[in-house]
Amino acid sequence: MFKDNRVCNLFGIKYPIIQGGMIWVSGAKLAAACSNAGGLGLIGAGSMKPELLTQHIDKAKSLTNKPIGVNVPLLYRFAKEQIDVAIEKGIKIFFTSAGSPNKFTEYIKSHGAIVVHVSGTPELAMKCQDAGVDAVVIEGFEAGGHNSRDELTTFTLIPQTADKITIPLIAAGGIGDGRGIAAALALGADGVQMGSRFVATEESSAHINFKQEIVAASATSTFLTLKKIVPVRLIKNKFYHAICQLEKDGAQVEEFQKLLATGRSKKGMFDGDVVQGELEIGQISGLIKDIPTVEILMHRLIDEYKTAIGRLANNTYSINATNDNQPPDLPTIP
Amino acid sequence: MFKDNRVCNLFGIKYPIIQGGMIWVSGAKLAAACSNAGGLGLIGAGSMKPELLTQHIDKAKSLTNKPIGVNVPLLYRFAKEQIDVAIEKGIKIFFTSAGSPNKFTEYIKSHGAIVVHVSGTPELAMKCQDAGVDAVVIEGFEAGGHNSRDELTTFTLIPQTADKITIPLIAAGGIGDGRGIAAALALGADGVQMGSRFVATEESSAHINFKQEIVAASATSTFLTLKKIVPVRLIKNKFYHAICQLEKDGAQVEEFQKLLATGRSKKGMFDGDVVQGELEIGQISGLIKDIPTVEILMHRLIDEYKTAIGRLANNTYSINATNDNQPPDLPTIP
Repeated sequence: MFKDNRVCNLFGIKYPIIQGGMIWVSGAKLAAACSNAGGLGLIGAGSMKPELLTQHIDKAKSLTNKPIGVNVPLLYRFAKEQIDVAIEKGIKIFFTSAGSPNKFTEYIKSHGAIVVHVSGTPELAMKCQDAGVDAVVIEGFEAGGHNSRDELTTFTLIPQTADKITIPLIAAGGIGDGRGIAAALALGADGVQMGSRFVATEESSAHINFKQEIVAASATSTFLTLKKIVPVRLIKNKFYHAICQLEKDGAQVEEFQKLLATGRSKKGMFDGDVVQGELEIGQISGLIKDIPTVEILMHRLIDEYKTAIGRLANNTYSINATNDNQPPDLPTIP
Repeated sequence: MFKDNRVCNLFGIKYPIIQGGMIWVSGAKLAAACSNAGGLGLIGAGSMKPELLTQHIDKAKSLTNKPIGVNVPLLYRFAKEQIDVAIEKGIKIFFTSAGSPNKFTEYIKSHGAIVVHVSGTPELAMKCQDAGVDAVVIEGFEAGGHNSRDELTTFTLIPQTADKITIPLIAAGGIGDGRGIAAALALGADGVQMGSRFVATEESSAHINFKQEIVAASATSTFLTLKKIVPVRLIKNKFYHAICQLEKDGAQVEEFQKLLATGRSKKGMFDGDVVQGELEIGQISGLIKDIPTVEILMHRLIDEYKTAIGRLANNTYSINATNDNQPPDLPTIP
C-alpha cells in the first residue's frame, strides 16, 4: 500500500507510522509491538539511565527482529552515554529532540545509523536538513508533553515545512486515528509519529490509571502550561491546577522548579498517581476511547486510513470518471 | 466533483469552500467574487453599522446572482439590527459567532433562512446542533482574529466534532491551500471556511499594506494574545508588542481596553497602518505568497485539492488494483 513511501523505505517498514519515544511509557515491550505490527517502535530513553536503556534494547531485540529505534532528548545529562550504549547495541535508528541537530547528528551518522530530529518550526526543520539528518519530525502545538514556544499547529506546520525541505517529513501532534494519518499525508507529510494513541495500548508501560485518564478525557481535558520553564501539555488534574495557581500568583522560576523537583512525571505516568502526578498527553486524548493491543490498533489505523482516502477519492470519482468501469482521472504523484 | 457534498447541497454551491466573514476586509466585492467563483461569500457585518450592511448587501446582489451570506458576531451591539436588515434584504444564509447559538437561531430560521454557528469545541458544536442550526463551523487555535479560550487545534477539533454531531461540519483555522481542504475532509469535515487566504486577494477590502504583510509573513509571524480580554491572533508588529509589554507588566483589564479603544483594527487592516494597527490574521499566513484574484485562487485551490487526493489514492492504487485497467478497490463513503 505504501510502496513508494519515503518513510517506509528509509526505515524498512510496512506502514509510515512511528510510535513516538516518550518518557515512562515507551519501553521495549511497546516499541517491539509497534515494529512487529508494521510500524516503527521507538524506545524513549529520556526516563532511562544508560544501564536501563541497555536492558530495554536487549529486551526489544528478543521480542522482534524488525527495525527498532531509540529517542534521545538531548537536554538530559545522559544523552551522550545513551547514544553510545545504543550504538554499541547495534541500534541503527535515532530520533533526537530538545536540542540542536548539530550536536550529535554527524557523530551518530559516522556509526552508520539514521538520524531524525524533532522540530517545532519550518525554520528549525531546514536547519535539521542542513545538519545532515535523514528525516524530520515536525510536532504541533496539540502534541502532548514538551512543546515548542512557537505554538505552531500540525495543520499549519506540515504544508509550510513540506514546501521548505526535500528530506522525508514525519508529522506529529494531534494524530489519533486513520483519518489523521490521511490528513497528515494530504498536507504533505510522508509519515506520522503518534504518541498519545500508543500510550493507551496494552503494551505501553504507562500505569493503568493513566491509560484510563486518557480514555476518560474529553477534547478540553489538556492544556499547554509551564511556559515560564518549558512549555508542556498536561491533563488538567490537581497538579496542573497547582501550576496554574503559581502562574496566577506571579511565582518565580524557582518556585515552579520546586514544585517539579519531586518526580512528578514518574509519579503520574508510571506510578499512577493521577491526582498529584504530571500527566503528559496530547489534545487528541478526547478521541481515544479504548486500550487495545498494538496489533489491533495498527489494523484499525490502516482500515480507517483506507476509508478516509476512499471517501475523498469517491467525491472526485463521480465527475472525473468517463464511465462506471473506468478508473477515476486522478493525477499521479508529482 | 462534490456531487454528494452536504455543504454544497445546503447552500447550493459548487465547491464546499466558504469565505469567512471578517471585519474590515470582507465586503460586497469579496463576497460576490467568492460566490461567483463557486464558493460561498460572506459579508462580514462585524465592522458595519446596519446602514452600511444594507449598502453592501445591495452591492453584492448587483455583482452576483449566486447565494451570498452574512456573518454576524453576536457580541456587537448592532447584531439584532444587522440580522433584521439582512432578512429584509432577502439574505437566506446567516453565519453567527461570538455568542450563544440559542440567541437568534430560532428567530432567523422563522424567516426561512439557513443558520450556521461558529464553535471552538465539540461540546459547543453539540449545543449548536441542539439549538437547531443547519451546520456548524469549528474553528481551531491557528485561526486569525478572535479565538476560543480552549485552544483546540483544527487537527484535533475536526474528528472529535465529526464523531459527535450529525449536521454538516465546516472546518476553519489554518486552511490555506488545496492540501488543507483535502486534509479537513479526510479528518471528517464536509467543507471548509477560509479567512486569511481570502484577505490576500485583489477583491478583499483589506489595505494593500496589510495584504503585503501577509505575503511577507513567515510561519512564526503570528501569535495568540490578549488572553486577559478576549484571545486574538495577530501579526507580531509594534502594536502586538505593546500588548505583550502590558502583559509582562501585569497590567489590569482597563489598561488593555485603553490601548484597544483607539480603533486599532480599522487602523491596521483597513487604513494600512501596519505598525500601530491591529492585524488579525491566521497562522497559515506563512504559506500565502501572492495576492491573486478570487477566481484564479479558487481554480488553484481545486487543482491543489485534486493533486492532494490523487497523491493519497495513488499510494493505495498500487496494491489494490488487480490490473492497470481496473479502478482501485477503494471503500465507498460510509
